[in-house]
Amino acid sequence: MALDKKNTNWRDKLHEIIYEADTPSGKAFDIILLVFILASIALVMLESVNHIDAKYHYWINIGEWAVTILFTIEYIARIITVRKPLKYIFSFYGVIDFLSTIPKYLSFIFVGSHALITLRALRLLRVFRILKIARYLGASNQLKDSIIASRVKIFVFLFAVLVSSVIFGSIMYLVEGEENGFTNIPKSVYWCIVTLTTVGFGDIAPQTALGQFITSIIMILGYGIIAVPTGIVSAEYVKNSNKKDKEDEEASKKGIITERYPNVHLNTQRCKNCHEEYHKDDARFCRICGTALH
Amino acid sequence: MALDKKNTNWRDKLHEIIYEADTPSGKAFDIILLVFILASIALVMLESVNHIDAKYHYWINIGEWAVTILFTIEYIARIITVRKPLKYIFSFYGVIDFLSTIPKYLSFIFVGSHALITLRALRLLRVFRILKIARYLGASNQLKDSIIASRVKIFVFLFAVLVSSVIFGSIMYLVEGEENGFTNIPKSVYWCIVTLTTVGFGDIAPQTALGQFITSIIMILGYGIIAVPTGIVSAEYVKNSNKKDKEDEEASKKGIITERYPNVHLNTQRCKNCHEEYHKDDARFCRICGTALH
Amino acid sequence: MALDKKNTNWRDKLHEIIYEADTPSGKAFDIILLVFILASIALVMLESVNHIDAKYHYWINIGEWAVTILFTIEYIARIITVRKPLKYIFSFYGVIDFLSTIPKYLSFIFVGSHALITLRALRLLRVFRILKIARYLGASNQLKDSIIASRVKIFVFLFAVLVSSVIFGSIMYLVEGEENGFTNIPKSVYWCIVTLTTVGFGDIAPQTALGQFITSIIMILGYGIIAVPTGIVSAEYVKNSNKKDKEDEEASKKGIITERYPNVHLNTQRCKNCHEEYHKDDARFCRICGTALH
Amino acid sequence: MALDKKNTNWRDKLHEIIYEADTPSGKAFDIILLVFILASIALVMLESVNHIDAKYHYWINIGEWAVTILFTIEYIARIITVRKPLKYIFSFYGVIDFLSTIPKYLSFIFVGSHALITLRALRLLRVFRILKIARYLGASNQLKDSIIASRVKIFVFLFAVLVSSVIFGSIMYLVEGEENGFTNIPKSVYWCIVTLTTVGFGDIAPQTALGQFITSIIMILGYGIIAVPTGIVSAEYVKNSNKKDKEDEEASKKGIITERYPNVHLNTQRCKNCHEEYHKDDARFCRICGTALH
Repeated sequence: MALDKKNTNWRDKLHEIIYEADTPSGKAFDIILLVFILASIALVMLESVNHIDAKYHYWINIGEWAVTILFTIEYIARIITVRKPLKYIFSFYGVIDFLSTIPKYLSFIFVGSHALITLRALRLLRVFRILKIARYLGASNQLKDSIIASRVKIFVFLFAVLVSSVIFGSIMYLVEGEENGFTNIPKSVYWCIVTLTTVGFGDIAPQTALGQFITSIIMILGYGIIAVPTGIVSAEYVKNSNKKDKEDEEASKKGIITERYPNVHLNTQRCKNCHEEYHKDDARFCRICGTALH
Repeated sequence: MALDKKNTNWRDKLHEIIYEADTPSGKAFDIILLVFILASIALVMLESVNHIDAKYHYWINIGEWAVTILFTIEYIARIITVRKPLKYIFSFYGVIDFLSTIPKYLSFIFVGSHALITLRALRLLRVFRILKIARYLGASNQLKDSIIASRVKIFVFLFAVLVSSVIFGSIMYLVEGEENGFTNIPKSVYWCIVTLTTVGFGDIAPQTALGQFITSIIMILGYGIIAVPTGIVSAEYVKNSNKKDKEDEEASKKGIITERYPNVHLNTQRCKNCHEEYHKDDARFCRICGTALH
Repeated sequence: MALDKKNTNWRDKLHEIIYEADTPSGKAFDIILLVFILASIALVMLESVNHIDAKYHYWINIGEWAVTILFTIEYIARIITVRKPLKYIFSFYGVIDFLSTIPKYLSFIFVGSHALITLRALRLLRVFRILKIARYLGASNQLKDSIIASRVKIFVFLFAVLVSSVIFGSIMYLVEGEENGFTNIPKSVYWCIVTLTTVGFGDIAPQTALGQFITSIIMILGYGIIAVPTGIVSAEYVKNSNKKDKEDEEASKKGIITERYPNVHLNTQRCKNCHEEYHKDDARFCRICGTALH
Repeated sequence: MALDKKNTNWRDKLHEIIYEADTPSGKAFDIILLVFILASIALVMLESVNHIDAKYHYWINIGEWAVTILFTIEYIARIITVRKPLKYIFSFYGVIDFLSTIPKYLSFIFVGSHALITLRALRLLRVFRILKIARYLGASNQLKDSIIASRVKIFVFLFAVLVSSVIFGSIMYLVEGEENGFTNIPKSVYWCIVTLTTVGFGDIAPQTALGQFITSIIMILGYGIIAVPTGIVSAEYVKNSNKKDKEDEEASKKGIITERYPNVHLNTQRCKNCHEEYHKDDARFCRICGTALH
């Protein structure tokens, strides 16, 4: 962190502030951005409430324009400070940053009383700004690892839930029929998922004795199989956690790492050249392209 | 895999394509079959939606006949290429293959406006085709093992849920009575399962103070015991997983297996003589009857 | 098992048949009893369904009397064959056996059109017969141990759920008020338990914006804490299971037990004198009072 | 425990009774207090039920005054017996003790038919008395530790649930629209939380085919991710539990502690000077300020 910063120009400084969070100004930028993202989501939400929008439409509109202009500046700054702008633009957050800024401008171009309703849909995309917040939360690596390790098993499990829903949904359609709300098979399958996942809205409910008997089987089945994904993630997590502990122990015996493993990962440096993340704390050069980091 | 295939005739070749998935043509066959299964399920679903069926009845009917004929050809090919056809016919997938093909033909024979409704039930059996897909997903062996290992405990648990439902259902029938929707004991038991499994449709709900008090006890009980099957599967999975890891370790020490254990299982060869599955990758002869595999 | 049975008289033989399940006649008795218990529960259930009772009242009544008489004979036989009858009569199953037999006789004494409704309640107690079935399922010892080991923690947890329900229920009563279905605090607390346990009937649902906001907090809280009891039972089960495995291993090293531990427990012998259960398979005398077992 | 008590005056004796539970009189005080807390909560609840309040208003009012006066005496006694009263007054339980006593007195001052409804809110705060009970249940240290250890991961998880709810809520608002009950985005987000947490009230339910399809995805997602927090707490609990066991083992090897670790914590002594808790059983002086404990 305490590296020499003689040859850094304004672009590199801005890159440090925008993309990283280990300088005071970088942290301040991130917190301000976080506040604006939350404010913009609140504005979109309030606008959708009729009686609030009727009263404060003027102020909500001003607020939305303010947020949009600030996000535009931020978006341009992000493009300017990166050496390979295209890589940022087509990255996951690059696309989200663009989609969360553009709708308000589009509402300016397509003026018309009838078009407003459809534009609302585009405007709502700004809600996706919330995804940006994920950046500020250090992703729990162990958690991610155990979900990845068990993803095949979870997929097999969810597939089993879907197949059961299709079969039981079809049976219920035959048993209950259209007069009891099971108007067609897709709707019956939807109802079956509602029941298997123990949500149970109750907008559709079995009325015949046979239908209620089959529903009982579906529910007990659902109750029994809820154990499966929980058990899997839990077990993978224990395994993963034990493995990590052992690795840490061995590493600390050899004197390589003194701190715990997870802390090594928490560096927010991002390479200005190749846009690579997750550099170790003591790294002076990008491990991918060799560009100096600071 | 790279075995000599000099003496294979057309029947053996077809057997390879239909039953196995380790040649390019075998894989292609499986993927095409998968697409047709999904298409046929989609057709059955669309047919049940009134406004879609009214519009496209002609095309849906043609599609159903196309799928039915293709499945018939597949079914005949499966019988011809196996040396012991009866074993296939009365196997689990043999019965499903038959039941998913026959209803459309039956609808041809039993023409009549009244018989159509009952035939629908048979036609729907084609939805069971979806079960075939399970073949294409490598069953997670560890998951299966831990469910089998804990099946007695899960059964005891589900039995406890049923007994509780019968007792609490009877009590609720007495407390709430017919005027509040608890019209008879079987219905009360059904409601109790709905509540214990935390589904809670709300079509029947307690109205009296005492009924709501007993319901609170039922729900907290249900909430407390949901932990039990989850804990069991989870624990069995951890145990199983540890055991497998230890076995792998020991085996790799002795130099027997170099790859991980699960990969050994993933061979899709099926014996042409005795219809046995799950041969090891380096197996040249069926481990049950000694017939050459290729 | 293959012990000498020279001095066994008819009472001892009957005791063997009724209380134990390791002779062919003992097993047969248990299975017949199981069938009658299920039949009697089915009769009580069918009687409560109005249109079935209206049609087959005569046959259901005959069936009920048949079952009642058989259970009476069984109850008397159990008392006769035990050396200390009082210990049986006031044991858990003794009381259940009595309560499941008496209501039908009471309906004979208290004849009267008005008294019938209240007698129904007593008759329903026969449903408790189902509890007898629990005898025939070898209770999973490990499961029981892990629930007992975590009972204090589960109690603390359920208490936390109750306290949260009282507090949130009171808040919701103030926020939503009587006009939105939250007519009094006990009802609000009931609704809160419905929500926290993720049952969600929907007979009462928040209507105000603030009420829906608080409900969101309650639900996310409920979702988050469902992890706690599951985690506890799961962890206790893993610990318990590991401990048992270790004990078995050590015992088999010393040559004491060759079979696995759980099998040792599965003996159904019951002492004729002190009514003690769970004797080891090779036990010739009661470990409590010294009476010979056979 | 069996320490010399020569120089204890009445204030110290009262402190022993009120704040601690290891003397007979201390235990008796705690149990009496517990009964009064439960009684006062029952009174508040009964008062809110209209037909009960109409009948027994006079007696409920007397009961409330009795409880309030007793709590006032207890509150004053707590302040008198502590050497640093301000520390108690502004502690968590100090504030709760005050808030659970004051509303009844306020109802005396602000007399008026209109003010009564708002005063009810203050009166309800007395329900918070229930929190006091938590004192009497030895908090399961292992459970607390594993929740604390996994709090970051649970927070990340709950945040993910919230973000999903905002995004899916906005989508559902667009898909279903105001005519199907999704009147604005905040309400849609509320509905989405209801669905994701598997509560499913059913007061709002999707009506369009697309809406039901998206709902199916939300529910399966919710079903899949319920595994995550459970797995985390479970795994942390296993780890924690193993660590504690190892520590105990090592400690007992060194001969430091003979009893199990958790018992060491269960001392209810509280320092009269600095109000510090959790002293070890053999402690004669406060480990923080050095004042003698007895």
